[in-house]
Amino acid sequence: VKLLALVSMAICFVSTSIAAGQEQIENAPEIPVPAAASDELQAAIRDRSWPNISDLPEPPTNTAEWLARIEQADTARSSNIPSVLEQANVALQRSEIAGVNVHRLTPADISPEHKDRLFLYLHGGAYVYGNGDAGIFEAILIANRIGIPVISVDYRMPPRHPFPAAVNDATTVYQEILKTRSANSIIIGGTSAGGGLALAAVHQFRNLDIPLPGAIYAGTPWADLTKTGDTLYSNERLDRVLLTYDGGLGAAARLYAGDHDMRDPLISPVYGDFRVFPPTILTTGTRDMFLSDVARTHRKLRESDVVAELHVYEGLSHAGYLVSPDTPESLSMYREIDAFINRFLD
Amino acid sequence: VKLLALVSMAICFVSTSIAAGQEQIENAPEIPVPAAASDELQAAIRDRSWPNISDLPEPPTNTAEWLARIEQADTARSSNIPSVLEQANVALQRSEIAGVNVHRLTPADISPEHKDRLFLYLHGGAYVYGNGDAGIFEAILIANRIGIPVISVDYRMPPRHPFPAAVNDATTVYQEILKTRSANSIIIGGTSAGGGLALAAVHQFRNLDIPLPGAIYAGTPWADLTKTGDTLYSNERLDRVLLTYDGGLGAAARLYAGDHDMRDPLISPVYGDFRVFPPTILTTGTRDMFLSDVARTHRKLRESDVVAELHVYEGLSHAGYLVSPDTPESLSMYREIDAFINRFLD
Repeated sequence: VKLLALVSMAICFVSTSIAAGQEQIENAPEIPVPAAASDELQAAIRDRSWPNISDLPEPPTNTAEWLARIEQADTARSSNIPSVLEQANVALQRSEIAGVNVHRLTPADISPEHKDRLFLYLHGGAYVYGNGDAGIFEAILIANRIGIPVISVDYRMPPRHPFPAAVNDATTVYQEILKTRSANSIIIGGTSAGGGLALAAVHQFRNLDIPLPGAIYAGTPWADLTKTGDTLYSNERLDRVLLTYDGGLGAAARLYAGDHDMRDPLISPVYGDFRVFPPTILTTGTRDMFLSDVARTHRKLRESDVVAELHVYEGLSHAGYLVSPDTPESLSMYREIDAFINRFLD
Repeated sequence: VKLLALVSMAICFVSTSIAAGQEQIENAPEIPVPAAASDELQAAIRDRSWPNISDLPEPPTNTAEWLARIEQADTARSSNIPSVLEQANVALQRSEIAGVNVHRLTPADISPEHKDRLFLYLHGGAYVYGNGDAGIFEAILIANRIGIPVISVDYRMPPRHPFPAAVNDATTVYQEILKTRSANSIIIGGTSAGGGLALAAVHQFRNLDIPLPGAIYAGTPWADLTKTGDTLYSNERLDRVLLTYDGGLGAAARLYAGDHDMRDPLISPVYGDFRVFPPTILTTGTRDMFLSDVARTHRKLRESDVVAELHVYEGLSHAGYLVSPDTPESLSMYREIDAFINRFLD
């Protein structure tokens, strides 16, 4: 299934829109297009319909500005969801679990080995974007490509609901689901803030002595909101999705954390204790500004003797497998997740 | 065992020596020291006794210049080997196997689980440096830290013996060893050119229908001599070991390959077919110019359904675990190799 590039563009954390005919943009002119990436990814990188850092809007400074920015971005993100659902042959049911809004995504073709399993999906969007249908693009991709039933949690977010609302909503849904299925039949995960939230939620499950899920998918997780990782600096400009930390990401981190210590493992899970964590698959790319934080999370897991697999794709920016979903890199990544699920879930 | 930093410095592929009191050097002033690296690695990065790119000598242009450069570098590399052996409590025996010079390195404390296993080690040094004792620093580290007997192959190198001498020597030694032990009791590997040579040698073993070793250690392998990987560009300057491809590395690649196509899998193993390869552990760092080529090799292995583990260390340059062997990052990496051996060797 080829998915609309237009939809995937809306994954971008930057809500600037590029005028047609705008001059081609080049944030890192000294670095060539990566010749060993797939032809499709190279073409996507050459197609420089991405903002220049200097053209980024200032981050919002108050609640009204945040709400307007979020509304604009989420409207763009959700506009093509009906056609993506149709192309992917995935059925959507909006419902509630223990008072939390969820999207149930059921592929027409469920893989026989996954029929009794569940993907508990947590969307990305820097803990501010991705409300409602704007948060389910990857959930559809997972349902379609892996052939597994998905429940996507429409967790509450800032500015109205900062931390810990997201962690609490994920925990509430997980606990309710556990009433009717085994923890070992569930993989929890998502991309970016969704991957970070999955890791944070598992810290919380362990704190609360709730049985842990069978596996975690941490797709380029936002595991550290403190701007510490090496590649936040070294891949600035080169990462065509995030571009820079100092615009929207830093502001979103402050909005989400509020008065809480950003090093709280429920906010920045890399600072937590990973003992007895379930098997975890982590993915990133050489141009991902979060590469360092993904690698650091992988090391923390391994130092606690957790089964943890790290996959790094050549030339891929942050969440490039969503921004360019029809690349071989993206297909490969979901195949790895599929195989990982088969290895570790009941 | 603390190993002399002075020795490890000699691993550096750059043979420039830094005058005492020379002004501190800064190749990438805009990138801060990685705060999430260990204190020890941060200190090593702050200690800027590394050349600036603009101070690098021109690469040699003829055989006499190469021999002089190699002699200078290898003398520096080998000078402290006796004291490293003593500190590491590892016995060295120089001998020959089927006409190829080897170093046998036997730790005083052999781990019980490794007593019937062998580490067949291939040294680094861009296929030009590391003759004789100058090539055994990591072999000693492996013997000491993992507690496994090591045979290090003193393979022939340019300018006198370009490709395929190195592959042939590795193959000759491996075939001879197979007369007295099982392939599944052997791990083959090394760092940089040594990691690349290990992968190339396994391509050759498969070509020749020789039983494959039980595992491969590809420490930041030089898997592609064609200057293709993304991070060769994006980590230029930031990688304090390699600094740039355009000085010694590119020249060494041309010297090694001679008239052969650099994309021959026996020269640049990433271009090979990895089907039925043994389980492979690959290691790199966020500042490693070879990060892309390590990740690409990992992908090629995974696309062929080979068990392959990728480990990426925060803030680490190319072969940083050898250049700064007393860092927690280095200790962690050899623990991973130890665990990998226990999982996959008979």
